[in-house]
Parts: sequence; structure tokens; C-alpha cells
Amino acid sequence: MRIEILNTGTELLLGHTLNTHGAWLGGELFKLGLRVARQTVVPDGDAIREALAEAIGRTDAVIVTGGLGPTSDDVTREITAEVLGVELIESAAARLSLERFFAFRGWSMAEANLKQALIPAGAEVLPNANGTAPGVFVAPDLLGRPHGAVFLLPGPPRELYPMYHSEVAPRLQALGGAASPPAVLELKFTGVGESDFHDGIDARLASIPGLEYGYCARIGEVDLRLIGAPASIQQARALAVERFAAQLVSDDGSSLEQTVVRLLGERGWILATAESCTGGLIATRITDAAGASGVFTHGFVTYADAAKRDLLGVASRDLASHGAVSEVVARQMAQGALAASGADLAVAVTGIAGPSGGSPEKPVGTAWIAVAQRLGATHAFRVFQPRNRHDFKQGVSQAALDAVRRRLLDM
Amino acid sequence: MRIEILNTGTELLLGHTLNTHGAWLGGELFKLGLRVARQTVVPDGDAIREALAEAIGRTDAVIVTGGLGPTSDDVTREITAEVLGVELIESAAARLSLERFFAFRGWSMAEANLKQALIPAGAEVLPNANGTAPGVFVAPDLLGRPHGAVFLLPGPPRELYPMYHSEVAPRLQALGGAASPPAVLELKFTGVGESDFHDGIDARLASIPGLEYGYCARIGEVDLRLIGAPASIQQARALAVERFAAQLVSDDGSSLEQTVVRLLGERGWILATAESCTGGLIATRITDAAGASGVFTHGFVTYADAAKRDLLGVASRDLASHGAVSEVVARQMAQGALAASGADLAVAVTGIAGPSGGSPEKPVGTAWIAVAQRLGATHAFRVFQPRNRHDFKQGVSQAALDAVRRRLLDM
Repeated sequence: MRIEILNTGTELLLGHTLNTHGAWLGGELFKLGLRVARQTVVPDGDAIREALAEAIGRTDAVIVTGGLGPTSDDVTREITAEVLGVELIESAAARLSLERFFAFRGWSMAEANLKQALIPAGAEVLPNANGTAPGVFVAPDLLGRPHGAVFLLPGPPRELYPMYHSEVAPRLQALGGAASPPAVLELKFTGVGESDFHDGIDARLASIPGLEYGYCARIGEVDLRLIGAPASIQQARALAVERFAAQLVSDDGSSLEQTVVRLLGERGWILATAESCTGGLIATRITDAAGASGVFTHGFVTYADAAKRDLLGVASRDLASHGAVSEVVARQMAQGALAASGADLAVAVTGIAGPSGGSPEKPVGTAWIAVAQRLGATHAFRVFQPRNRHDFKQGVSQAALDAVRRRLLDM
Repeated sequence: MRIEILNTGTELLLGHTLNTHGAWLGGELFKLGLRVARQTVVPDGDAIREALAEAIGRTDAVIVTGGLGPTSDDVTREITAEVLGVELIESAAARLSLERFFAFRGWSMAEANLKQALIPAGAEVLPNANGTAPGVFVAPDLLGRPHGAVFLLPGPPRELYPMYHSEVAPRLQALGGAASPPAVLELKFTGVGESDFHDGIDARLASIPGLEYGYCARIGEVDLRLIGAPASIQQARALAVERFAAQLVSDDGSSLEQTVVRLLGERGWILATAESCTGGLIATRITDAAGASGVFTHGFVTYADAAKRDLLGVASRDLASHGAVSEVVARQMAQGALAASGADLAVAVTGIAGPSGGSPEKPVGTAWIAVAQRLGATHAFRVFQPRNRHDFKQGVSQAALDAVRRRLLDM
């Protein structure tokens, strides 16, 4: 089954917005045993016509994203009807869905939104529970001559992703396109780089027959994806887990924060956070995980020295003599967070995100991390991540959450 | 001048690797006054042939990335020669450049690397200071009949970016394609939807001659992008700012949190945060802005009732009778954060992120936001954002930061 993706949006080609749809849809289709033959990105407007006409003529299915909004540059519906040579008509189902969307929120619907109820005659409406733009499905037998099926999907991921799962994937399967999905296993590691894998196990992975594998490196994280025969995957898994046992975060797609929340729940422990340079990122990552309220009660963002002193009891003389970015302050922050919250475990970070505030002795990118345990030891360590502000916060929060994970596993 | 991008690489369509080339090249070309007419992404191998032949036939220039490495799936050079109908020959310059690359590093060159010295006959070698793969330039007069110019560039950004700047941009300018870059202005708004623009000013924007405009909607934010003649942009700007004065966040690309930090700095005010359902996201957004340390000292993540009581002084009886998600608790959280921090302004949020914890009276997605000012009034309001957990946090933090922005502007 030949599938193409057509992404529409001027902003995707102007450097404003990163196009993540190719990777996401490609990954999802792959789980159905399908591959993307081509992805095309065009600006809003007339360029869509040419690209869509070409794609419909040479594919079994084309998945179009974007241009379903209420404004004048949203013309995907109109162009699709034109390319198919059918009328654009109002769908009662789409109109009802729109009216319900607004009514449920107590909002009044703008006149402009009515155009979102228009679909090419003979097409099917795909309901959108997460936004105003209904999707559209054109079956491959609409015109009585061979052409590809067409899916029109909204651009925003929060609308696209659920619609793909509930509406697109089942239809692709019904079209007979879905093969038996290949087995896939994703292992998440932290505290190692992609080059550690290259040096450590890459050659041995390459020698496993029937295995396709790849890495995806993020800040403080490497994902190893294994595809192929189940026995080959198990062989590769054993190899990777043996070599990087302490760094393995999950083998079920769970993020580091989800793993930490699960481990805390299993122990029945409460975690507290005390953050300076990460500014609340550790707390917000923990509370991204459903179930966080069972294991997390108090977070302190002590960005100023006074806050470290007042809320966490860090000693003024140590702040003065060692500086806020120091082992002694990190330790006192973690211990102070334990005392102020009654938690079982506390993690504290203090560092220099930059761009200013560095010194030769403590350059921008330096951070101290401490983990304190009620009735247990406090451990502290230094990290050095000379990155931009955003990536520094991400990297330091990753190291801090990993320190909590290891403490929970007694590693 | 019609320009297309052709990205090659199986990994770009499997969910492994995010394709950032479209956004990056699009942004760079835009600075030269050039637009990308189309971006095409194909897997390694034969799919490149078809896509390249099409692109050469309809463009003035096609920029190809990837497939210049030494391994068997790197076939871009071969396919380009084939599509052009010319021989593949060894370039003495490319071979010398390869040998120098390895000699400089004291590495021995593998036999496989020799294929990287091959170029289509008549093409020009583009030196690569940052990797082994030389680039290739095919001038648009090579074949003696009309065809687009072709640039073959390496895929890795650390090789692609410098080669674009030193080799591609000057050649595009020499081809007469580079115009004077158009003026561009981006206005950020919050608290309005894309459809409000359509109903409010879209028709009037459309009637401004010499103006190109587009919207990009994010959670709690709409960006209006204006491109064209400076006078047209100013006319459009005036229109948008007059209609949505209170919702304008910035006209210089600044994020909402950067705007809040700037306004706090201008007033010499300190902000404190008290977060329940957003779990630290407001604090981490504020500390994403450089300069935050001058205006933000204390953040409280009071995820549990006990933390609201202990750290912020919220009354137990109010927690019991009104519930944690209530106006009275939001107000006490904001006032408590003021008292506990000595800040000038405090923002507090308490809500139900879900997936569990909702009730008919307070469904998942409900949040109360309060802003308290030292020696000033406390205002509270309710928002309802029935989204997934991540988007709920983003939307509520956006509403809270906007409430702070408005208070700072006395709106």
C-alpha cells in the first residue's frame, strides 16, 4: 500500500514552526506495518492543489494535514473538492459537532467557523473531540475511477494525534493496507550518550540477523528502537540491558518522570523538590505524570538566596562563604525540603543557567544536585552542562530525576 | 525564483529522526528574500530518482540533503548523474579534500570513502570543512537545455549549515535569485482565538495591498505574521493592535513569559508563584526568560492540601468546605504567597488536571486563578480547559501569566 503525507502550512517553510508530522505519522504507520513513500510540504494556498492532485494520482492513500481552520488561509477543504471535481457541501454532522464543541465550553461560535462544516460531496466527516476542525475522509471509490483515498486532518498535534488513532488507523486497516505490524521494542536510557552505544554494542547489534535498529538521542536520554523478529529483538534487548543495566529507564515507552512516579508509588514514598536553577521544571515534569498527586505534595522554587534561607533553612553563612551553587547549599536545600514537607525523599538542585552569573571557578553550566532521604544519607554530586538556558534546565532536571530513580532502586 | 528542498533519508519517515531542514533552510532562504515552493522527503534509494527528476523539471534551484556518505545506502550522487544523463567521474579536488580531511585528523581513509570523491561530470565540488562528504553544485546551464540548478548537501546540520552559508547562499545570489529580503513582523496575542481574528479583522487585512499574512495558533496564543511592504505591515499592525489591544503580548517575537519578566523589571516588582494543578510550570516558564532572577525569588508548588495550608496559610476549614479548587482557596494561596515571600505580586492557580478527580460541579479542566498585589486588590477568575493533562497545564499557565501581564499594565 503506497501512502504519502502532504503537510500544508506556510509557517512550516519559513523557519517559524518545526514540522513534526512526518516523524510522528511515519512512526505510527510503521506500527501498522506501513511505510511512508513520500512526504510533501507546501505553503498554504494554490501550491496545495498541484501537490494533492499528483499525490491522489499515484497513491493508495494520502494523508493531508493542516488548513482546516476557520480563516481565509485555510483552504484544504475547498481545494480537495476542486481536485476531486465534486461540490463542497455543508455536512449536518460536522455542523452539529461544531455547535456541540462551542456549547460544551459555553463559548459562542463565530460565523467563520461555519466553513469548517463544509466537506466535499460524498466524503465522510471525521469527528474532532479536541478542536473545532472536523476531519474528512474520501474513500478510494468516490469517483468511480482509480484514485487514492484522502484523509484531511487538522494540523495541531493535540487534534491530529487522537483523530489519527480513532479514525485513520482503523480505515487504513479496513482498506486492507495494514500488514501484520512488525515487533518493536523501545528501550529508554539515561546517563549515556549515543556514542557509548556505538562504541559499546553497535557492532554486536549489527550482527544480529533479522534486526533493524536505530537510536534517537535527546537531552540526557538515548532511545534504542529495535524492530524485527521477536527472537532477534530479545537478543538485542539482552545485549543492551546487560551493557547499560544501571542506565535503563524503561522498556515500555515510559518517560523518566513516569518511572520515578511509579517507583515512588511502589514504595509508598513521598518526594519533595527544592529547585533553584531548574526553576520548577523538575516539579512540573513530575506532575506531568498521571498519579503524581499520590507521591508528590511539596515543591520549593527557591530562586533567590533569601528563599533558600527562609523556606529551606539554608544557613546564611554557607550561602555567603560557599555561594549558592555549592555542595553544602545543595545538601542543605534537600535536607530543608525534607524537613519543611515531611516527605520521605527530597531532591535539590542549584546551578548557573546563564547567560550571566558564571565565574572561572563556577562556569555557566555548573550545577550541584543533592538527594536526601529521611532517616538516610544525603548524597550530592556536581554536573556540568554548558548549554543554552532551556537545554541546561532540561539536562539538569534529567540528571536530578535520574538520581532519584537510582536512589529508589538502591543503585 | 522557484526553489524546492528535497530531503533524503529513510530515518526521516520512520519516527526516528525529526526533520529540521525544512524549517532551517526555509528561514535562511527567507532572509535572502526567497521562498521554498515545496519540500519533499523521500526514503533512501530509488524514490530519490523520481522526486529529483520532477523537481529539476519545475524549479530554478533544488536543494538536496543527505545520501552523500560512504555507505551503500548513500546514492544521491549516483542518482543525480543518472537523472541528468551525465557520467559519474572522480573529482581530483574532492579526492584531495577527502585525503586532507583524514590526514589532518591522523585517521586512515577507508576504501568506501573514495566514492565520496565522485561527482556528476561537469558539476562543481563544494568543500566540506566539517565532514567527509563534499557537496556538489550543478549549474542550470550544464545540459544546454532549461533545468533547475542542483545543490547536493550533506544531511548532518553541523556540515549542512556552514556549507549553506559559504557555498549555497552566494550561488543563489549570483543566479540572480536573491531579492532584498521582505520586511516581516510577528505579533503575539493571547486570550483570543484564531477565529476571533477571522471575524474581527481578517477581511480588512485581506484588503491591504502588498501584504501577506498568516496565523499560527498555539495553546492560548495566536501569532499573526505580517510580510510585505513596510507601509502595508504598519497598516496591518495598526489594525490588529487597535482591535486586540488588550491581548497583544509582543511585536518582537518575545514570549508571554519574557514579556512578563520585562514588565516586572520595568516596575521593579518581584513576582511569587503558588501552583497546584500547573505543578511548577508557571515558575519554570518564568525562569526560561533570561533576567528572571531579578524579578522572581520564591515559587511554591503546593500540590497537596497540607502544602497549601503549611506553606501558604490556606485555612483548613475553607479547604474542607469549599474544596481545593475554589475561588476562596485560590485567593488565599495568592495572598499567602505574598506574605511568605515578601513579593509585590503573586499569582496562584488551583485546578483539576485529570484524568481523575473531576465531579459534575467541578469537571476535569476547571481551574481558579488569583492575582494578589501587595497593598492592592486580589482578583480571581475561573477558567475551563478540558484538555489532556499536558495541554491543560500549558493553557492554565498561559491564562495565569496573562493575568499577571494585565495587572502589570493595569488592564
